[in-house]
Amino acid sequence: MNGDFILGHECAGVVEKTGAKVKDLNVGNRVALEPGCTCGVCEFCKTGHYNLCKDVEFLATPPYHGCLEQYIAYPVNMCFKLPDGMNTREGALVEPLAVGIHAARQGGVTLGSSVIILGAGYIGLVTLMACKAFGATDITVVDVLSKRLKYAEKLGATRVIDASRCDSVKEILNKRDGEGTDFVFETAGSAVTIAQTPILVKRGGTIVLVGMEAQNVIPYDFSKIMAKEATIKSVFRYRNIYPQAIQAIADGKIPVQEIVTHEFDFAKTAEAFDFVIDHKSEVIKAVIKIS
Amino acid sequence: MNGDFILGHECAGVVEKTGAKVKDLNVGNRVALEPGCTCGVCEFCKTGHYNLCKDVEFLATPPYHGCLEQYIAYPVNMCFKLPDGMNTREGALVEPLAVGIHAARQGGVTLGSSVIILGAGYIGLVTLMACKAFGATDITVVDVLSKRLKYAEKLGATRVIDASRCDSVKEILNKRDGEGTDFVFETAGSAVTIAQTPILVKRGGTIVLVGMEAQNVIPYDFSKIMAKEATIKSVFRYRNIYPQAIQAIADGKIPVQEIVTHEFDFAKTAEAFDFVIDHKSEVIKAVIKIS
Amino acid sequence: MNGDFILGHECAGVVEKTGAKVKDLNVGNRVALEPGCTCGVCEFCKTGHYNLCKDVEFLATPPYHGCLEQYIAYPVNMCFKLPDGMNTREGALVEPLAVGIHAARQGGVTLGSSVIILGAGYIGLVTLMACKAFGATDITVVDVLSKRLKYAEKLGATRVIDASRCDSVKEILNKRDGEGTDFVFETAGSAVTIAQTPILVKRGGTIVLVGMEAQNVIPYDFSKIMAKEATIKSVFRYRNIYPQAIQAIADGKIPVQEIVTHEFDFAKTAEAFDFVIDHKSEVIKAVIKIS
Amino acid sequence: MNGDFILGHECAGVVEKTGAKVKDLNVGNRVALEPGCTCGVCEFCKTGHYNLCKDVEFLATPPYHGCLEQYIAYPVNMCFKLPDGMNTREGALVEPLAVGIHAARQGGVTLGSSVIILGAGYIGLVTLMACKAFGATDITVVDVLSKRLKYAEKLGATRVIDASRCDSVKEILNKRDGEGTDFVFETAGSAVTIAQTPILVKRGGTIVLVGMEAQNVIPYDFSKIMAKEATIKSVFRYRNIYPQAIQAIADGKIPVQEIVTHEFDFAKTAEAFDFVIDHKSEVIKAVIKIS
Repeated sequence: MNGDFILGHECAGVVEKTGAKVKDLNVGNRVALEPGCTCGVCEFCKTGHYNLCKDVEFLATPPYHGCLEQYIAYPVNMCFKLPDGMNTREGALVEPLAVGIHAARQGGVTLGSSVIILGAGYIGLVTLMACKAFGATDITVVDVLSKRLKYAEKLGATRVIDASRCDSVKEILNKRDGEGTDFVFETAGSAVTIAQTPILVKRGGTIVLVGMEAQNVIPYDFSKIMAKEATIKSVFRYRNIYPQAIQAIADGKIPVQEIVTHEFDFAKTAEAFDFVIDHKSEVIKAVIKIS
Repeated sequence: MNGDFILGHECAGVVEKTGAKVKDLNVGNRVALEPGCTCGVCEFCKTGHYNLCKDVEFLATPPYHGCLEQYIAYPVNMCFKLPDGMNTREGALVEPLAVGIHAARQGGVTLGSSVIILGAGYIGLVTLMACKAFGATDITVVDVLSKRLKYAEKLGATRVIDASRCDSVKEILNKRDGEGTDFVFETAGSAVTIAQTPILVKRGGTIVLVGMEAQNVIPYDFSKIMAKEATIKSVFRYRNIYPQAIQAIADGKIPVQEIVTHEFDFAKTAEAFDFVIDHKSEVIKAVIKIS
Repeated sequence: MNGDFILGHECAGVVEKTGAKVKDLNVGNRVALEPGCTCGVCEFCKTGHYNLCKDVEFLATPPYHGCLEQYIAYPVNMCFKLPDGMNTREGALVEPLAVGIHAARQGGVTLGSSVIILGAGYIGLVTLMACKAFGATDITVVDVLSKRLKYAEKLGATRVIDASRCDSVKEILNKRDGEGTDFVFETAGSAVTIAQTPILVKRGGTIVLVGMEAQNVIPYDFSKIMAKEATIKSVFRYRNIYPQAIQAIADGKIPVQEIVTHEFDFAKTAEAFDFVIDHKSEVIKAVIKIS
Repeated sequence: MNGDFILGHECAGVVEKTGAKVKDLNVGNRVALEPGCTCGVCEFCKTGHYNLCKDVEFLATPPYHGCLEQYIAYPVNMCFKLPDGMNTREGALVEPLAVGIHAARQGGVTLGSSVIILGAGYIGLVTLMACKAFGATDITVVDVLSKRLKYAEKLGATRVIDASRCDSVKEILNKRDGEGTDFVFETAGSAVTIAQTPILVKRGGTIVLVGMEAQNVIPYDFSKIMAKEATIKSVFRYRNIYPQAIQAIADGKIPVQEIVTHEFDFAKTAEAFDFVIDHKSEVIKAVIKIS
């Protein structure tokens, strides 16, 4: 790990060469790469929870380099073919989308579910898109940046609430006759929003923790959780989602490209990183075009 | 039960009067009625499987009269309020739709599922709409009537197959690289289609029996079921679906009115029944306008 | 609610008289009473989650009197017949046992599960018995009272740890090669034990909150929960458990009487309450013999 | 595959040598071998359903030799260490037991479940032991051989029924007040017993197909399945069971050795096979002692 380290774990590209044993991929196919290669033999892998494998080799997680390069050698079982009409830009977005889909699936969102999403950054927005694709019909999105909330509205939120202008908890409960929702997705990762979840969830409902932050220990009202017999689920990356996510994008169910606000050429990668750091409130998702 | 018997178990209307203890409904509200009133205290009711309650009083199931009348007295807990912008025609269609939603939910259809639906009568079509709403992305519909298949196409089937013109099983497997689908819904209720299900289902997949017919005992290849470790689920009416179904219609997720091919006035009810019997291949769903 | 209030919500007795419509119970039958009578028509009741019904009438929860009396009139659907060979003392213990069974079931304990139970009061002990009955094979029980831990050992705990004598978290992890368990049941309700749960649970494991305390807001390390993709479930009373609990006791799978440390006559009820308050560390469960 | 073929897929033994990268096993450890080595990278493996992997290499399934030999080289992730006090004879029986455990788990047997097991051969008996370990309390076993039924009684069946002496279906329903059971396990694999399952299962219950036979196509009453909204699950080998099965045996929950009726020395392997063929009704399970 001395010297340079290559960043990047969200990518798609075109197959340039295949190994001798590869059957299902050909040169010229477009593929999205799932960034975590796992051992396949531990208890987590065997039971289908490979995202919990302790021996994972994850792109851009030291000592493993990332994918911000023109060529990458990659195991065929983690290369997912994109169907006709789906481009590699959409392919690269399968990774962040997979987090949202995993969150919705961990919670158990289904047809007619009511949902609150705390935070409208790109993780909040992919969660919104995923919830809609799973059938949710009443989706409230909360953030403090009006620009982000506009994206949430555009992507089909039933209502958006600007927490910088009102008491968002009171506002939500007012609009829902005092009732919480079946699911509360916490994507902001802040102590404030995490602490709101026991109030916002409905009796018997489920909170899903998707955001993460440096701050670890948060005061939390467990008595409300117990009085409602609520469940708290959490999300660590994702598992077994790429094929379905790709189908959902190709089918038009999830307009994943809508979260892209900026695009840069590969030659301008360094500038791209600087730009994103300097324009945090403006950028939802930026992509780099490699070739 | 001597004398006349009133038919009809799919209906919606406007509240004309409410009982003294009714809180959540007012005169003038539009409501859809769920036709089975259950005991609330048996083991099936207590565990949420009230559709299996032995003491159910189901509209138009003797000795209980149906709803083809101008007024009906009905328990408030089985009257579901329709939101603004949803009409009583849609409300009356919640009942057949509930069968399709229950079928999709019993099977466990989710985002990215592949599905075959055998039969494109109205039950096949509501199953199709339900599967799409739960996130299915690859839906094949099979029937022998091209008129019905046109409806399936219009409602978003990925492909339709006319079994009167080809070997439908071979055709499906060809189009899917020899692979069955995650879910096979049998809505035709015929011995022929039931017998196809073990061939059409994928390894580890699920067959859902939705159709029913006089013919009871059918030769079935259980060895294929076991070799694939497939599951067979079945559907008896539905449970706990009206609120979500209404949300899904109001939200635009399910264009339930699309299955209505004919409408009759209440005064012409007798003619309506005759017409449907005489034009079986033409009618998908006929509705009667009561007032 | 002026005047006296009758306590007690755990009871069993003999049928003295039945209503005209009662079919399945006869005078002389022994029955256990489930203490919460629910509405049967709200969304929670209809979906089988009747413990979340807002209109529950629960014994000894004002304004509803309890069962510490010689006769009680009670709805037949909440009276559960005890099989031959099962006495009313066991019958009265079905109620606390139901909490333990609900906890084990909420968590999803199954054959071969590893379990930690924090707290060996009577709720901890019924949880222990329930976990064993569901098939758990590696059960660690922690408490600070050695008397209680002796009960845990007698009831089949794989190991017990006295947290008053060691760093219990370190001790548990040492004995399990640094690995947490599939399930952690928190029955002590203290801030200290709740805060231990993210450390003690295994990757992908489940924490079940069973104990409750006045203290509401507790500092909690959610980052550990997320890194392990752990789930937190909670328990509010129980639902749909009496028939199975009775079967399990009658079958000898759960020796529920083992938790009884003291018995009092009905005439000495007041003294019984005083005794229990004065001998907290000594009493696991005391019963009152009504006749 | 010309020349000799080695049989046997149920085995346990002592580690004689380990590969350079093996960490968790040492020379001298006793281990049970899971006989199917799978690819680890197909969709079935990744989702935890590795028993459906198409590229499985299964002991004694051509072209893969079996384990009836003194030494075998085997992947460490399919060698499961036996705890102190558990011998290799028990270890060899983990394989058949795993089928019973998988069957009970596929069905969803839990505390207080009622169960019918059709067939009391060794598969029926391991299913019985598994159902008890998962908490079933009312278990009826049916067979036509009284010797087998004695084993079922010894292993804790609530009642056994000799179908050679009575109308077993009528007899079961009589003994259960006309009610079927939550679960019906078909382990005999005959057309007669498979056809009984829709009658014997309770409303909302589950049939699990465990037995298999040459005869494929069986007349089946699907209308009963639908009227009861029953589920049919099936079993193909097993997955993710060895660790729990070993725990359950070591813990004393499953007395798996009870099904062994005969033992032979390795030198007499050929005679052992002949004996079993000649004494079908007498042998439940025979083991061969390799060293």
